[in-house]
Amino acid sequence: MAKEDKTYTIGLDIGGTKMNAVFFDGEKVIADDSLATPRDSLEHFLVMVKALVDPMLEKAKEIKARIEGVGLGIAGVIDYSEDKMLVSPNLEILNNIKLTEKISAMFELPVKMDNDGNTFILAEATLGAGKKHKNVYGIVIGTGIGGGWFKDDEIYRAVHGGSGEPGEMIIDFAEPVFLEEAYHKLTQNNPAQMAEEAYRGDVLAGKVFEEVGDFLGIALANIANLIAPEVIVIGGGVLESSDLFLSRAKKKMREHIASPILKKQLKIVKAKLGSNAGAVGAALLAQPK
Amino acid sequence: MAKEDKTYTIGLDIGGTKMNAVFFDGEKVIADDSLATPRDSLEHFLVMVKALVDPMLEKAKEIKARIEGVGLGIAGVIDYSEDKMLVSPNLEILNNIKLTEKISAMFELPVKMDNDGNTFILAEATLGAGKKHKNVYGIVIGTGIGGGWFKDDEIYRAVHGGSGEPGEMIIDFAEPVFLEEAYHKLTQNNPAQMAEEAYRGDVLAGKVFEEVGDFLGIALANIANLIAPEVIVIGGGVLESSDLFLSRAKKKMREHIASPILKKQLKIVKAKLGSNAGAVGAALLAQPK
Repeated sequence: MAKEDKTYTIGLDIGGTKMNAVFFDGEKVIADDSLATPRDSLEHFLVMVKALVDPMLEKAKEIKARIEGVGLGIAGVIDYSEDKMLVSPNLEILNNIKLTEKISAMFELPVKMDNDGNTFILAEATLGAGKKHKNVYGIVIGTGIGGGWFKDDEIYRAVHGGSGEPGEMIIDFAEPVFLEEAYHKLTQNNPAQMAEEAYRGDVLAGKVFEEVGDFLGIALANIANLIAPEVIVIGGGVLESSDLFLSRAKKKMREHIASPILKKQLKIVKAKLGSNAGAVGAALLAQPK
Repeated sequence: MAKEDKTYTIGLDIGGTKMNAVFFDGEKVIADDSLATPRDSLEHFLVMVKALVDPMLEKAKEIKARIEGVGLGIAGVIDYSEDKMLVSPNLEILNNIKLTEKISAMFELPVKMDNDGNTFILAEATLGAGKKHKNVYGIVIGTGIGGGWFKDDEIYRAVHGGSGEPGEMIIDFAEPVFLEEAYHKLTQNNPAQMAEEAYRGDVLAGKVFEEVGDFLGIALANIANLIAPEVIVIGGGVLESSDLFLSRAKKKMREHIASPILKKQLKIVKAKLGSNAGAVGAALLAQPK
């Protein structure tokens, strides 16, 4: 039976290859599921979203829980004033679409949408590795590199949007290359495969992750010198191979932080909510204010 | 005669080569003056601060204005919890000194201290080029490269301090070099001289400023992609030669901003308060809350 004092929502983390959904009671995940993300057409995409969410709505009926809304976390640049996806790097079918309206019509529920870096850090700062801190930055390294910033109990939002894109950090001013590009190039677009080779003892693959550690460390130092958060939470698929690069990244970061206090105090932690973090954040986003 | 409703303070901008002071009535500068910054000893430094401020205190007496406090803007990392200068890059005599206590004892007035990037942006966002905006980032390019961020009517302050250091941005991850270092190297530690040569038609000097424009543009894009302010105010001595690099910097920046809205909306403007900006910000800082 549903508890009266709980707030039930559904959260969807829509990635370039996988869509992950959770049925959430405000504190914990009641059910979760995932499906491959259709990239061929918007119609197909919406059908699969329905296939993912409908069983959760059924489940809610069973336990007599009233669903308050649906939240979406998606990689890309969102026009918050129009609630419209402007540039979706992984899902071109979503470009210039008012996705919230379409999904809201489908389920007859209020729908909120945010960048997946924002939903990730909302979840981790509220319930995960950043809990108890006031100023938490998050970096998600998966298909792409995203990020978000949680400060004074809310997601940081810029007036015109477009903030929180650490993957767009330029790593060489003379020959402008974005961090995300460099990461793709280094790992030959397949970090999981590259990690497997490194674990098997392949020296070159091991070196690739040393370099990933160095690059990430300097990116973390750039973020630290600019906004000096208390904690930076690292998430995404890359965590499965974090022992290949994370301690190196931390060392490199500390070498390049200007403030001696910050150098000592800044914590780098791994995400705690695992692969559900983005979807849980989307579910939190959907809670009525 | 002093007006009853005005708040009179004194602001000092303490640079690596020059100290600039203003006597400020809350809206405008009543008197300003500057002296070379002594770098040999703390005692000498304090004597010269007194020489700079005493005539302003006299002036205040003349017009029967009650001075409410003194504000200091200084380059360096400040420990705000102890109100102590930790690392002063240009003035080693100030390292690990509780400067506010010493200056407060000297004038028998409350003294507040902040990073000069913060005092610069406090002044420009309150009274200068960033007025009417809610989210204003400032970069000051002078002896060094400093910065500050003014958001929702206050200076952004990180929990452990150490934020707002765009000069510490790393411009080449493979061979870590800070932006400030690269700027010094490019301009051979003498940007004013280099600018003079460029104006005289020296081709190589002209190329140096083109490169300064490119580097600055990419640094601006990095700041934009991370925190997406409404306006970035450029200040400092470099403004005198801004026609050598600023339009190039803007173009380069727009090429590397991820969000199409931000690319269109973000304004890059020149500081309006001229060489007094830092001191005016320090004077604003000294106003009782």
